[in-house]
Amino acid sequence: MSKFWSPRVRELTPYTPGEQPRERLIKLNTNENPYPPAPGVGAVLRNYSTDHLRLYPDPESGALRQALAREFGVEVEQVFVGNGSDEVLALAFQAFFCQQRPLEMPETTYSFYPVYCRLYGIERRALPLTANHEVDLAAFATDSGGTIFANPNAPTGHGHGRKAIAELLKRVTDSVVLVDEAYVDFGGESAIPLVVSHPNLVVTGTFSKSRSLAGLRLGYAVGSRELIEGLTRVKDSFNSYPVDSLASALAIAALEDNEHFEACREKVITTRERTRTRMEKLGFHVLPSQANFVLVTHPEHDAAQLFAGLRERGILVRHFNTEALRDFLRITIGTDDEMESLIETLETLCG
Amino acid sequence: MSKFWSPRVRELTPYTPGEQPRERLIKLNTNENPYPPAPGVGAVLRNYSTDHLRLYPDPESGALRQALAREFGVEVEQVFVGNGSDEVLALAFQAFFCQQRPLEMPETTYSFYPVYCRLYGIERRALPLTANHEVDLAAFATDSGGTIFANPNAPTGHGHGRKAIAELLKRVTDSVVLVDEAYVDFGGESAIPLVVSHPNLVVTGTFSKSRSLAGLRLGYAVGSRELIEGLTRVKDSFNSYPVDSLASALAIAALEDNEHFEACREKVITTRERTRTRMEKLGFHVLPSQANFVLVTHPEHDAAQLFAGLRERGILVRHFNTEALRDFLRITIGTDDEMESLIETLETLCG
Repeated sequence: MSKFWSPRVRELTPYTPGEQPRERLIKLNTNENPYPPAPGVGAVLRNYSTDHLRLYPDPESGALRQALAREFGVEVEQVFVGNGSDEVLALAFQAFFCQQRPLEMPETTYSFYPVYCRLYGIERRALPLTANHEVDLAAFATDSGGTIFANPNAPTGHGHGRKAIAELLKRVTDSVVLVDEAYVDFGGESAIPLVVSHPNLVVTGTFSKSRSLAGLRLGYAVGSRELIEGLTRVKDSFNSYPVDSLASALAIAALEDNEHFEACREKVITTRERTRTRMEKLGFHVLPSQANFVLVTHPEHDAAQLFAGLRERGILVRHFNTEALRDFLRITIGTDDEMESLIETLETLCG
Repeated sequence: MSKFWSPRVRELTPYTPGEQPRERLIKLNTNENPYPPAPGVGAVLRNYSTDHLRLYPDPESGALRQALAREFGVEVEQVFVGNGSDEVLALAFQAFFCQQRPLEMPETTYSFYPVYCRLYGIERRALPLTANHEVDLAAFATDSGGTIFANPNAPTGHGHGRKAIAELLKRVTDSVVLVDEAYVDFGGESAIPLVVSHPNLVVTGTFSKSRSLAGLRLGYAVGSRELIEGLTRVKDSFNSYPVDSLASALAIAALEDNEHFEACREKVITTRERTRTRMEKLGFHVLPSQANFVLVTHPEHDAAQLFAGLRERGILVRHFNTEALRDFLRITIGTDDEMESLIETLETLCG
């Protein structure tokens, strides 16, 4: 605590990201893709002229936004890019959710959302999940200051279909609805086709998961022109060039290789379903997941102890020490070999 | 304007960065370095394994902060890194300047500062430059909510020595003093040695100018541990990993090549002084500069017209259409050949 800090900064409780260990561990804790990025990424990297780095990037990130616009079948003016979807989300909180009325979100969802609320002084209303651990779309009010949720949700893995989101958008028309699709490519259904007809919908996504580029920090938002313009106003009042030239070129290469993308996500989905069956045999309750992780709990074994036992044996998963999640472990889907090691270790730990 | 935007966003006037043209122009408008980054940057780039990109970066950017700490002779806890010094500045405004009392800055300085004030609702008090176009250090109040200026200042180029900054810090002890040293390597004197003895001093810098890495977006701050901790709290409430792994590795390579760094900055300084002599012969008044640009005015020629004439002939410089700067052009120091073309074109234009 320092007298030199702004008053609000003294009250902040920053977000805690998953550990990035230095030792060699089987790393199933931060939902990274176990497969490398598309081969074209390496080709662009090796041929990139470093002389180009002396120049500032295009402040509008035109080429990357064009590539995403083509990918999603929208206009370039409907696409925003930023330094990871965390930055895109933070700018969206400023652009849309600093309102008189509270922002609504599920009680259990991406734990960065409440951190943004504290940073920007936004009042937050948290709504319980359903008994099935699903986001309760029917519970969102029509007169809130905004609505945000991850779909598929984190760390539960459940995703609502486009039809359910469309139903929500029929009711909530006076404030922004932000659907965070960080995990959608592992079996979810994207709401992006709905942006055409809903001026208050913004959908965010990332290159960190299905595109295997977490190290590059690239995220995006797709929405109506007026929402993207609002985001851009905030971005241009914060940092003119958040996306670096090299990262942009590499991300475009990743987008161009659809075959690699499809192959990787199918492998992850197949491994996830196999992992789920194996874990259920060990007595775990495994929540159905459309993401590249599973949330699991065991009726007879303490999650914190399992976490510690796995860590000791070189396997890192995620345990959230909150009331709602204390009994669960969130396990990223790795390669088949990694998941085999996990299962074997859990067999030992669960006796 | 949209009803979905947060009220403050409707009032924003975003920063306007210099144009990044697509045509081939002699580009003297955004203070980029005319020389490529150190050769080691290319070597690291070509050997970088793209498989590493599937993992998140170190959220603490330990390796890059260590390299900067060594460079500046400070502890790693005194170093902060971000996505360009623009991001570092924006986070610093949040961390230190959201106070009850107004933030003081020169009337003419980096034009992003007033934009941050609007974004964060910070009251601003602008102090005129001296008759010599210098930042008037004696005019800063001791009871403000904070003090910020660029040193060397932009777009004037004048820099105060460390002794003058130390005098200021004797008077201003109750709020944060931020010295933005984006241009210091072209002949200025850094205030970094003063951070040891002044808990309220924070100095920012960038890899975009003297390190020829504007395309990578890397900036830093050096200060007391308590100020760096405040900055980190805001960063960790905004974006856990603002610096990407690849950019970090390339920046470390740039820091390691001191010979290249010295050679490039000396070339820029020599060319600047030669340009100044040549322009004075053409009748320009050239403000003394410790930066990689000069601010010039001509008693007989309109700056806006000269800007347009140069643009037509393929040379891009910067003209700020504000009352204080309307009569000036800011010209980045390029290679000797580029400056020769500039001088020849100005000879034609000034007839």
